[in-house]
Amino acid sequence: MLNFNFQNTTHIHFGSKQIQVLSTEIPLKAKVLVVYGGGSIKSNGVYDQVVDALSNHTWFEFSGIEPNPTYDTLMKAQAIIEKHNIDYILAVGGGSVIDGAKFIAAAAHYQGEDPWNILAKQEPVTKAVPLGAVLTLPATGSESNGNSVVTRDGNKLPFSSPLVRPLFAVLDPNVTLSLSDRQISNGVVDAFVHIIEQYLTYDVNGKVQDRFSEGLLQTLIEEGPKALQPETKEDVDVRANIMWSATMALNGLIGAGVPQDWSTHMIGHELTGAFNIDHARTLSIVLPAVMKVRKEQKRAKLLQYAKRVWQVESGDENERIDQAIKLTEQFFIQMQVPTRLSDVDISESDIDLLIARLESHGMIALGEQGDISLAISRKILTQAL
Amino acid sequence: MLNFNFQNTTHIHFGSKQIQVLSTEIPLKAKVLVVYGGGSIKSNGVYDQVVDALSNHTWFEFSGIEPNPTYDTLMKAQAIIEKHNIDYILAVGGGSVIDGAKFIAAAAHYQGEDPWNILAKQEPVTKAVPLGAVLTLPATGSESNGNSVVTRDGNKLPFSSPLVRPLFAVLDPNVTLSLSDRQISNGVVDAFVHIIEQYLTYDVNGKVQDRFSEGLLQTLIEEGPKALQPETKEDVDVRANIMWSATMALNGLIGAGVPQDWSTHMIGHELTGAFNIDHARTLSIVLPAVMKVRKEQKRAKLLQYAKRVWQVESGDENERIDQAIKLTEQFFIQMQVPTRLSDVDISESDIDLLIARLESHGMIALGEQGDISLAISRKILTQAL
Repeated sequence: MLNFNFQNTTHIHFGSKQIQVLSTEIPLKAKVLVVYGGGSIKSNGVYDQVVDALSNHTWFEFSGIEPNPTYDTLMKAQAIIEKHNIDYILAVGGGSVIDGAKFIAAAAHYQGEDPWNILAKQEPVTKAVPLGAVLTLPATGSESNGNSVVTRDGNKLPFSSPLVRPLFAVLDPNVTLSLSDRQISNGVVDAFVHIIEQYLTYDVNGKVQDRFSEGLLQTLIEEGPKALQPETKEDVDVRANIMWSATMALNGLIGAGVPQDWSTHMIGHELTGAFNIDHARTLSIVLPAVMKVRKEQKRAKLLQYAKRVWQVESGDENERIDQAIKLTEQFFIQMQVPTRLSDVDISESDIDLLIARLESHGMIALGEQGDISLAISRKILTQAL
Repeated sequence: MLNFNFQNTTHIHFGSKQIQVLSTEIPLKAKVLVVYGGGSIKSNGVYDQVVDALSNHTWFEFSGIEPNPTYDTLMKAQAIIEKHNIDYILAVGGGSVIDGAKFIAAAAHYQGEDPWNILAKQEPVTKAVPLGAVLTLPATGSESNGNSVVTRDGNKLPFSSPLVRPLFAVLDPNVTLSLSDRQISNGVVDAFVHIIEQYLTYDVNGKVQDRFSEGLLQTLIEEGPKALQPETKEDVDVRANIMWSATMALNGLIGAGVPQDWSTHMIGHELTGAFNIDHARTLSIVLPAVMKVRKEQKRAKLLQYAKRVWQVESGDENERIDQAIKLTEQFFIQMQVPTRLSDVDISESDIDLLIARLESHGMIALGEQGDISLAISRKILTQAL
């Protein structure tokens, strides 16, 4: 096991009717900015629950944060923060809203020239407005980590700081019942690939981390499809298990003390940036190709994955690995996401552009060993055609 | 899944040479009381590492905290705290030392008549001296939870408060290499039973919690015996996996959102209180008897435990359950701990005393359903003879 540092301070409130804890979790004297997305929280009752819980607070709102939140949208919140002396941000939504809230929180106290430098130059965040989250879409884990991804002019870049980790997160699985199939499937696939990025690397004998990752993968494989099937999609327990899996997938725990990959995400980000493909759908396209192209480097873990996650025990090593990759693709197909670039109308002639974008973003040495060059990324994209 | 609240703020520093972080984790202006046990930290080099790390701090020390720390010993620390205006406590040791440090921390700010009331009357802790921990014996999980158990006049009682949760914990698996076989086996068994108490109850479809618990149990089953075998006992990776398992076993995570039992612990505490049996050895005696007597109430989970933890899949339900219990006993025997009261010279004639002690401590409705009466505890003890 590798040395590690781990701390996750986010206070989780999980279950039915937990939104009401906002009334006590946010200091009464705070001036709160409630930020949200396109308004679905108004039709599914979440907005009303938030308004109820904040009935004794002073609060304002900022809406319109889009999927893959953009710098231009987020910067519009700065005027409200200044005008009303906002000192607490409440994000109500999925990963995009919470990621956006994190950037708003960091930008509010940014002292340099342009807050975009937090992402473009990875300038460290030194102060941020405290924030909390009401999660409506289980997927990114953003509700209890310090990570955020923001897009500007088609460039999708990440930043990270413990200062933007939500102080608390409310996870009520009931609020996910109104999600569309596409949102649910994207969320499950996103969480699945988060786990894989921290698991499918090289073996460092981190037994707890491996078992936890395998348990989360198995849970998503069991529960994900149920959330799409008519006879089980209203089952709150199914939603609860998905929701808790997605949080645990990226709260820092399973990645502590083990190598991490993230090449699927980095290549996927270019697909979103260039072609506006849903984030999760870029992952389901890229991951199987990464598994195939990096079979040798990931051999030991692919065999463990085949055995423990998919119970594949017959055949020689290569057959077992191939079978595990095939089952992964079948799971994605069952989750109604694409597994090929051709499924989203991207062809060989687009690969040059994607490679150029990877290069311009400095993504020239990806993977757990830093040895996925642009040439290997090209192989991966070609494999994914 | 049940509704839950989860927050664990302890900052974990895991791995080789991590003790040096004390120099920055503890504020330089703090007046630190370093508390430890019988002095083994002086022979294994841990004390020297702590002294090095605190070379710029003002610190004092208090030693002699015994296994199953006693009120009388712990109260002696109060004079030092008062005399030197101690405002930070550093516990260096195993669960007993850290538990003791927690009581010292809470007692220092106790305003009532006798700090023993924190345990005897479960008076809530309203203020405590902040504390950190350097863990030397993986077992109790005390390094990142708010729990403590203190003994007075043979009465072993627990208390709990987030105010005594260590702010940070240093986990260097190398320091466990000097532990005796008995300390290691006790630690592994203690952690194992902590997991079982949060897992082997009734099913609430908490899939993540179940998989995490099963992963930890499997890790301890795989790694525990290796720490006792000559050819593997020096393997730091084995120690690292045991250490991280023991922390995760009782840091609040696997028990969040699921029912919990703790009857094995409560009955075991009386064995320690009355007969001074090592804590873990009371658990290895009581747990198999609890499994047998509570077979019907725990049927679904026992079957899941048989299948997922022990890979027992043949035979009818009762055979599979019996086999899982037998394998649990064999694991304990392999870990060199007793599985019967007769192994520690306790006989049927002692049971009345144990039942009277349970009654006097209010332990009259134990278990995940609160339906383990004194009569059932008697059955369990009789089963364990």
